[in-house]
Amino acid sequence: MTTAIIPEVLEKAQRARQAAVRLAELTRAEKDRILLAMAEALEANAAAILAANARDVKTVKDKSGSAAPIDRLLLNGKRVAGMADALRAIAGFSDPIGEVIGGWRVPNGLEITKVRVPLGVIGIIYESRPNVTVDSAGLCLKSGNAALLRGGSDAIQSNLCLVRILTETGEKVGLPRHALQILETTDREAAGQLMRMDKYVDVLIPRGGHDLIQRTKREATIPVIETGEGNCHVYVDVSADLDMAEPLVVNAKCQRPTVCNAAETLLVHQEVAAAFLPRVGRALAAQEVELRACDRSLPFLDGAKPATEEDWYKEYLALILAVKVVDSVDDAIAHINTYGTRHSEAIVTRDLEAARRFTHGVDAAAVYVNASTRFTDGGEFGLGAEIGISNQKLHARGPMGLAELTSYKYVVMGEGHLRT
Amino acid sequence: MTTAIIPEVLEKAQRARQAAVRLAELTRAEKDRILLAMAEALEANAAAILAANARDVKTVKDKSGSAAPIDRLLLNGKRVAGMADALRAIAGFSDPIGEVIGGWRVPNGLEITKVRVPLGVIGIIYESRPNVTVDSAGLCLKSGNAALLRGGSDAIQSNLCLVRILTETGEKVGLPRHALQILETTDREAAGQLMRMDKYVDVLIPRGGHDLIQRTKREATIPVIETGEGNCHVYVDVSADLDMAEPLVVNAKCQRPTVCNAAETLLVHQEVAAAFLPRVGRALAAQEVELRACDRSLPFLDGAKPATEEDWYKEYLALILAVKVVDSVDDAIAHINTYGTRHSEAIVTRDLEAARRFTHGVDAAAVYVNASTRFTDGGEFGLGAEIGISNQKLHARGPMGLAELTSYKYVVMGEGHLRT
Repeated sequence: MTTAIIPEVLEKAQRARQAAVRLAELTRAEKDRILLAMAEALEANAAAILAANARDVKTVKDKSGSAAPIDRLLLNGKRVAGMADALRAIAGFSDPIGEVIGGWRVPNGLEITKVRVPLGVIGIIYESRPNVTVDSAGLCLKSGNAALLRGGSDAIQSNLCLVRILTETGEKVGLPRHALQILETTDREAAGQLMRMDKYVDVLIPRGGHDLIQRTKREATIPVIETGEGNCHVYVDVSADLDMAEPLVVNAKCQRPTVCNAAETLLVHQEVAAAFLPRVGRALAAQEVELRACDRSLPFLDGAKPATEEDWYKEYLALILAVKVVDSVDDAIAHINTYGTRHSEAIVTRDLEAARRFTHGVDAAAVYVNASTRFTDGGEFGLGAEIGISNQKLHARGPMGLAELTSYKYVVMGEGHLRT
Repeated sequence: MTTAIIPEVLEKAQRARQAAVRLAELTRAEKDRILLAMAEALEANAAAILAANARDVKTVKDKSGSAAPIDRLLLNGKRVAGMADALRAIAGFSDPIGEVIGGWRVPNGLEITKVRVPLGVIGIIYESRPNVTVDSAGLCLKSGNAALLRGGSDAIQSNLCLVRILTETGEKVGLPRHALQILETTDREAAGQLMRMDKYVDVLIPRGGHDLIQRTKREATIPVIETGEGNCHVYVDVSADLDMAEPLVVNAKCQRPTVCNAAETLLVHQEVAAAFLPRVGRALAAQEVELRACDRSLPFLDGAKPATEEDWYKEYLALILAVKVVDSVDDAIAHINTYGTRHSEAIVTRDLEAARRFTHGVDAAAVYVNASTRFTDGGEFGLGAEIGISNQKLHARGPMGLAELTSYKYVVMGEGHLRT
């Protein structure tokens, strides 16, 4: 904590703060023109982007030989076009800034208006996906915020190239200088210093794994929006339509197992365990899902391993599912509130009372009745693009779209009002 | 940071988390009954409260002999009645919990409802005012949150007595056990451990001076709502009605100089400096305000001292006012955005364009046109009681009432919806 300040971090944070003042004043037409020009420029400069990306891929390959991180990092013509389309989609969303959220006149005649304003400077710390660079740039611009990015070292050439194209093009059509910046220093200490720039940065959004998020919570002096970790459950109630429940469990687990809204534990009411577990076990086995079962579910599940206490806490992000038999909907709720991460939780039921107990009792950003947990997503919710899914209760919960990247101010009109 | 866990902190945090589940389910009628019973009990037990308070006052006197902290600490019959009335007022506010903030159906037929829910467990760290104990208890209860309080050691006997009366009475009429708790350990380490109970505590609200707030930002792993610091300005524009400006400046500085929304710096447009400064200087001198003036204002202000760069940053919280001449409304905005704490800022003007530039350009929770900065207050804004004034942009900005002590959840109804 006592290391010397890295000049790049301080300088870019200060410049971002200055840029934020000008960004707040841009009209929707001005912002959309910049976004569309940026989209064009990405496509026109695809060759340069792919060349920079190839350098990153080569460095990572030379270093490790592992294939896994490379897919997240790898760009191709289609992915570049996808990034451009994301910017065009953001241009299509309405402008959150300037919205009058509320207003009233108080007894002494003061007129109070609550107006949506940008947060100011948003710091985003992320890992190796270059598309996060473009999404963050677009969402921050549309919401009138200066973006100060710190991407991972694996993607540094791709990210620098993308930011250069976006800012050079943007500035030609009205993007304020330093509205979008990325740190060239990608070491751990630079990230740490960014986390403590509370004088210049209003909000920090870490996008990445458990370790990054825990580190940010621990070290940051700036308000943090925690994203991501999802230990999600599907509870199959005694009254569930089992024909609905089976594909729903499979969808929640398998449709995209590596993401935060995928299910990690299946809870089954004791009275339907014998009827439901063998069939859902076969359906999951067909998808090559490994099962980790409690004592009471184990006899019904061919090839399942016994679960340990550890399993109830796990976010596998893989084709593994923990399975537990519970005595009642209240037991299911208690399990979820104990082990879950308050992300996305589902009940399958035909019983109104069970549905109501579950939606009231479960403490999570999104609580589903008869729907897959996989729908927790800005696009699926109709919020437009999202910058992440908040796992905390302060400020924003669940998918964060443009409105969640804003604050408000009170504008108060008087006629010489004095407080008595 | 590696000190052993204080059992009391851990235990109370865990119990608060459990109580929060039950609190979330209380209806308005149940909560109001508890609040009214608590109010009665405070008045009925005034003698015990005053006796406990007398022990605190004696301890502080024996230790220091200083009178300043004692006034904040001291209770009397009228102050006890005031605390009871605050609880009755909270009972009169509508219940924020369960409010449907929004809802829509997405193209695939999923029905999404956004419902206001409690934050969960709120940790409040404060200094020696015992009324904060009662206000926090009432506001947290009404908003369905468990309260875990850590008051200062100076007020420990008063606080323990108040919490005992509130919980004993409350539990007789339906308050869940451990819904309201206070730490008996008041040392620095106990506060530090509370700041890191992110597993059990959802939000931390420090209420106190600069050092407490800075320490909380630095050490907390729980989301913090920063309150309080106010370096507020009044800008008198070239077009100002000087007859309006003079009492407004005096009100903003003097009506209650020790609070966060009091003005600390006066900015005056150069073209009205000669006309306005001598008269406002006399009016302020009549209130015994010490002036610290810039080079250009000094000649117009009898008895003023020269201001230093330091003065522009100061929250005096006393009868001291810094004074600066500026060239334009844009200069005033730039000064405020550089030195201010984004709390409450006022312009006095008759010019529409200046008013619009100021309200758009100044980055603050409350921006006033022709009204004193002193109105930034939950009661004055009509929000009901407040738990503090947020100085940050995340979650809540400005006065925080009951709604600002809530989060939301998405309840999603489907018919076996799967993501494709």
